[in-house]
Amino acid sequence: MDSDEQAASALTEAVVASFAGAADARTREVLEAVVRHAHALVRELRLTREEWRQAVDHLTAVGQACDDTRQECVLLSDVLGISSLVEAVNGEPEGTAGTVLGPFHLTDSPVRALGDSIDLVGTGTPCVVTGRVTGPDGAPVSGASVDVWQCDEHGFYDVQQPEVQPTGNGRGLFTADAEGRFRFRTVVPSPYPIPTDGPVGRLLNASRRHPYRPAHIHLIAAAPGFRTLTTHLFVADSPYLDSDAVFAVKPALVVDFAEIDDPEQAARHGVTAPFRHADFDVRLVLDDPGEGSE
Amino acid sequence: MDSDEQAASALTEAVVASFAGAADARTREVLEAVVRHAHALVRELRLTREEWRQAVDHLTAVGQACDDTRQECVLLSDVLGISSLVEAVNGEPEGTAGTVLGPFHLTDSPVRALGDSIDLVGTGTPCVVTGRVTGPDGAPVSGASVDVWQCDEHGFYDVQQPEVQPTGNGRGLFTADAEGRFRFRTVVPSPYPIPTDGPVGRLLNASRRHPYRPAHIHLIAAAPGFRTLTTHLFVADSPYLDSDAVFAVKPALVVDFAEIDDPEQAARHGVTAPFRHADFDVRLVLDDPGEGSE
Repeated sequence: MDSDEQAASALTEAVVASFAGAADARTREVLEAVVRHAHALVRELRLTREEWRQAVDHLTAVGQACDDTRQECVLLSDVLGISSLVEAVNGEPEGTAGTVLGPFHLTDSPVRALGDSIDLVGTGTPCVVTGRVTGPDGAPVSGASVDVWQCDEHGFYDVQQPEVQPTGNGRGLFTADAEGRFRFRTVVPSPYPIPTDGPVGRLLNASRRHPYRPAHIHLIAAAPGFRTLTTHLFVADSPYLDSDAVFAVKPALVVDFAEIDDPEQAARHGVTAPFRHADFDVRLVLDDPGEGSE
Repeated sequence: MDSDEQAASALTEAVVASFAGAADARTREVLEAVVRHAHALVRELRLTREEWRQAVDHLTAVGQACDDTRQECVLLSDVLGISSLVEAVNGEPEGTAGTVLGPFHLTDSPVRALGDSIDLVGTGTPCVVTGRVTGPDGAPVSGASVDVWQCDEHGFYDVQQPEVQPTGNGRGLFTADAEGRFRFRTVVPSPYPIPTDGPVGRLLNASRRHPYRPAHIHLIAAAPGFRTLTTHLFVADSPYLDSDAVFAVKPALVVDFAEIDDPEQAARHGVTAPFRHADFDVRLVLDDPGEGSE
């Protein structure tokens, strides 16, 4: 170890020690680990002052790009695979796989009745989504809330197009029936690029990564006594399933959106044939009473 | 390795691989290292979703707290010792030690003549700073620029008190004479707390860390053919030299601000006795022609 390395090592230990008085043991553990990894990164890369300035500028720009309808920090976490990793380390093997929240769950979903349409525009391919919320034993979770949001057939969320889409388009908060069943009408979502006009877009450009996500519908299922599940239904025939810009695809979440050209079935669901039908069951796990629900 | 760990490990490798096409080898190296350390941190801590959300919220707040007169991202880097570590890994053993830039070098320093006062208020303890800029061989660097900025005797920078301090108070851009000498008049700076009304202050509170910095004057010395030096002069009898909130103190930068009660010396420097006098020589190292000046 040369004297530079000794000085660097002493500095890291001094910073770690500065958090020894943290009021909360977990806060201390987290901050110490953040310091150790951030310092290891700087030392490993021998980061120059100019690179440090660029990093500071980038993080500043990410924070400043956030507003009521955009969460660029979540987006950065997403494209670095951190959001998916948080899901992976909090996985519940016996329940439906979770995946990332994404940056567009920004507004409350409008409360809708089972069978309602979340599509307020009517120009996309009609689609019916049905499913059942159960507990780990397969018993229905009566009254579970099912919050869904998705982009339209052109790949845009309502909050991205306030002058084109009515507020709440593509969003709905449903309550499962006594058998845990839910159903709603919508349009088939489109693959779309994550927003590339901000600092995260510049990062993707610099690394020649494409910004596309495979077509998907977001879903959060919750009920008292169960762990809240945040997940996606991915459209099985969508492009980009093998190169999702935010690394959120899990095989169990890829769902067949079957094409059905049967007027009788269409009429039963309140759509016109041909339409697509996705059926997706959600298995929740019991809440850990020691940790509380999220 | 259980299946969760395998999935997490595969995810990390997929994210690292996504940067393989980066246009620039260093960009790729940096992003891969960022991903590996960020993922290692999440896995080591088994970060919960709620903790991830808190981290995202904190980073968002840090970015949003930045404006023309405040750089909260630099402040975060400072209190985590990252800014000092960047200086340590870019150290030049044969030259004067560098230290952190800090968040207050936000406005151009007004151009002043040698001997001018940077104190536009006149209520603090008079102080004279003198010094000499040399190269590694001790030869004077004629015409070197010496950019200084400091807080007032109450611990505030001009940009923090636009209604109290005239713009440019405590700031000056000087040009060393033919012998590399510089001199200016000022007041003795005060220790001060870094801004605690933002997200970085909340972090310090949560870890019961005090926010104080020992009294110091910032200095950037630059000249063609030499590496630009960013450093501080610390006041030798200041409190907090052993617990600087931003970990910037180096023994070689602690300077005696001698008290001088001699009317003749005072008159020569254009101040009134008693006054303080700090003498600080700056030794620059040659620029590396392969890397270019910063």
